[in-house]
Amino acid sequence: MITRDDCVQRDAADPLAAMRDQFAMGQADRDGLIYLDGNSLGALPKHATIHVMRVMEEEWGRGLIRSWNTAGWIDLPQRIGDKIATLIGAAAGEVIVADSTSINMFKALTAAIAVASPGRTRIVSERTNFPTDLYIADTIAREHGMELALVDEREIGAQLDDRLAVLMLTHVNYRTGLMHSMREVTRAAHQAGAIMVWDLAHSAGAVPVDLQDAGADFAVGCGYKYLNGGPGAPAFIWVHPNHLARMDRDGWRQPLSGWLGHAQPFAFTPEYLPANGIRRFVCGTPPVLSLAALEFGVDTVLSANKVGGINAIRYKSIALTELFMTLVDERAALGFTIVTPRQSETRGSQVSIAHAGDGYAIMQALIARGVIGDFRAPDILRFGFTPLYTRFADVWDAVDRLSQVMTSEEWKEPRFSIRAAVT
Amino acid sequence: MITRDDCVQRDAADPLAAMRDQFAMGQADRDGLIYLDGNSLGALPKHATIHVMRVMEEEWGRGLIRSWNTAGWIDLPQRIGDKIATLIGAAAGEVIVADSTSINMFKALTAAIAVASPGRTRIVSERTNFPTDLYIADTIAREHGMELALVDEREIGAQLDDRLAVLMLTHVNYRTGLMHSMREVTRAAHQAGAIMVWDLAHSAGAVPVDLQDAGADFAVGCGYKYLNGGPGAPAFIWVHPNHLARMDRDGWRQPLSGWLGHAQPFAFTPEYLPANGIRRFVCGTPPVLSLAALEFGVDTVLSANKVGGINAIRYKSIALTELFMTLVDERAALGFTIVTPRQSETRGSQVSIAHAGDGYAIMQALIARGVIGDFRAPDILRFGFTPLYTRFADVWDAVDRLSQVMTSEEWKEPRFSIRAAVT
Repeated sequence: MITRDDCVQRDAADPLAAMRDQFAMGQADRDGLIYLDGNSLGALPKHATIHVMRVMEEEWGRGLIRSWNTAGWIDLPQRIGDKIATLIGAAAGEVIVADSTSINMFKALTAAIAVASPGRTRIVSERTNFPTDLYIADTIAREHGMELALVDEREIGAQLDDRLAVLMLTHVNYRTGLMHSMREVTRAAHQAGAIMVWDLAHSAGAVPVDLQDAGADFAVGCGYKYLNGGPGAPAFIWVHPNHLARMDRDGWRQPLSGWLGHAQPFAFTPEYLPANGIRRFVCGTPPVLSLAALEFGVDTVLSANKVGGINAIRYKSIALTELFMTLVDERAALGFTIVTPRQSETRGSQVSIAHAGDGYAIMQALIARGVIGDFRAPDILRFGFTPLYTRFADVWDAVDRLSQVMTSEEWKEPRFSIRAAVT
Repeated sequence: MITRDDCVQRDAADPLAAMRDQFAMGQADRDGLIYLDGNSLGALPKHATIHVMRVMEEEWGRGLIRSWNTAGWIDLPQRIGDKIATLIGAAAGEVIVADSTSINMFKALTAAIAVASPGRTRIVSERTNFPTDLYIADTIAREHGMELALVDEREIGAQLDDRLAVLMLTHVNYRTGLMHSMREVTRAAHQAGAIMVWDLAHSAGAVPVDLQDAGADFAVGCGYKYLNGGPGAPAFIWVHPNHLARMDRDGWRQPLSGWLGHAQPFAFTPEYLPANGIRRFVCGTPPVLSLAALEFGVDTVLSANKVGGINAIRYKSIALTELFMTLVDERAALGFTIVTPRQSETRGSQVSIAHAGDGYAIMQALIARGVIGDFRAPDILRFGFTPLYTRFADVWDAVDRLSQVMTSEEWKEPRFSIRAAVT
């Protein structure tokens, strides 16, 4: 049996342990809270508030409109994009921050179809992919007279034929935590002559990603999960430089042809002429305050480069998720099924456990005991492990409290089955 | 001749004078700065920083993911929309805050074409409309095999024929400050059987707007100008309730079919089913920190309701712009042509003056003297007058400094002709 002391000792030996000090976890500690939902909303970096305050007071309040130049607001989408690029195996100038993940997926899929082999009629994705990707793909497929085919993970291989225009997958599945092999899946899609679009929502900042090495075509990702950019932080989009070069040559336009994606936005010409490079994927004016928080969050992740960076994050992530699964196994009487792959190569930074029928109430009772995960219908309790601020002892305490919830049967209290608007 | 003392006396009698205390203008005063660019970026409400700080520390930092429910983040787009509705003659439930003006225009024009009379082939707008509206309209027209016709303001009437599907105009022109009669133009468009789409970027919070009274069909607007929501603040979209009811009946989908516009976003079903009502126009997760600042900015505007509200704002706006024009006239030797209409009924809250050839350098020299307006190519010096924080004495001082710039000819110094990235 693994003891709590074992976990405390692992924390003491953890090279990432000091990173936790960069996050505002003091109140959580005082509240006795264990936060295992960084895969839904990353925690607040401790000094992000001071940074945003300075942007508001100095740059907005004092600099006013001049700050678009003097404070470099106009360069923020590209500057943050270049920083995110280092986390996903992309080069500077290939990533830009803009809009939401949904809207960037709209741009990416439109672009993917534009560069796909003519005559192909299908977009394929996983049925359990995050719904917004599916909703956007459905719209795009209808617009182009194509078919959106949704299949189970194990059926993807059978879809790779000469009808396939675009394969769109989320690298780490939001429900199960299953992580695809980006390299192998991309290669298989390319062998079928298709375009590969990745959603990195649960990958960027959580697991090593190498888009260039994999030879992927397009990717989008989220700013508010493992990048700690704050609630609803702007998202990002990556486009392979070969596609960018071809778009520059062809003058290809994305459909959200807003003014800041214009080649010369301040010429105010009535005709749209897209910017070259990744800036072509910008639409309107970006929300600077949210960008400021996002930049701070990304910088916080990058500051882990001093202590091993994304590889150290991955190493600890595997250890945390394995510990969680082992502890749940040890208390097998709890009645959960572990949904997430046991093999670390195919697992992201989360563990999902299923409990038929009562998952929602159990999660609410667990939250009442100060362990925050989330519930995904119909039966999944989802726990995210962010190595920058999650301790091994937190994992032990979380399973211990889960055990208390189950043995006490307190989750059967009626108050825990009332659904909140967001769960 | 109007003296500075006359202006100081007008400030003393101004019922809106105390509103200035709600903005962070102390540093501007110490810097000797006169800010006449609130039509590009509204000033910082003094306590907005504290508000955003609280959202970051308490709601994000301590509440974490729970704040989507407990702090009402999930309701922010609708809650702020309802507040903006009171400024534009709309009812609660008809306005929602989301994305950027450009993206909302994409949604509005797509919806406008969906409800337009079949067989009509033209979208008409002003050639001098803000470019992002024209770029988006161009894309939409291409997608639907329609024609985008751009005409001068005086030629609009001639375009109102049975080919016209959608007339899209900005209520107050960003270059000239000319304000259309919303009621008359909308009626004329409707008489031609067309759909009327308004951009309220330079209207919301600046001039009284009554969308319902005018019977308009769709409107979009900006959060960071007269609503003081901060740089790149999210934008809003309004849809006439008759259209909303018809869309509910038909289950009409907007093309940016993101998960938060789903009827049941947290059911996570793979099929997209649009929400009823204005929430149908939401796409992805909204940037909460920027929304928080926007809500504070809108609340600041609404706090003027105690001292006359939008009508008092309009009364003072007319007085400020007339004063500016009169003072420029009195110093006619300056060599400027006033571009903005003299008749207050057709003027927004800005004054544009043209100077052939040298406008850019003159504006830079004026900024160096502490008067911030902006330049719009090829020849326009643009001055915005936000009645909540602009004093009559500021107007006098601004024209006085403009006069100094011109008589000293200091604008001819080479340093003033170097273009910044954003002007």
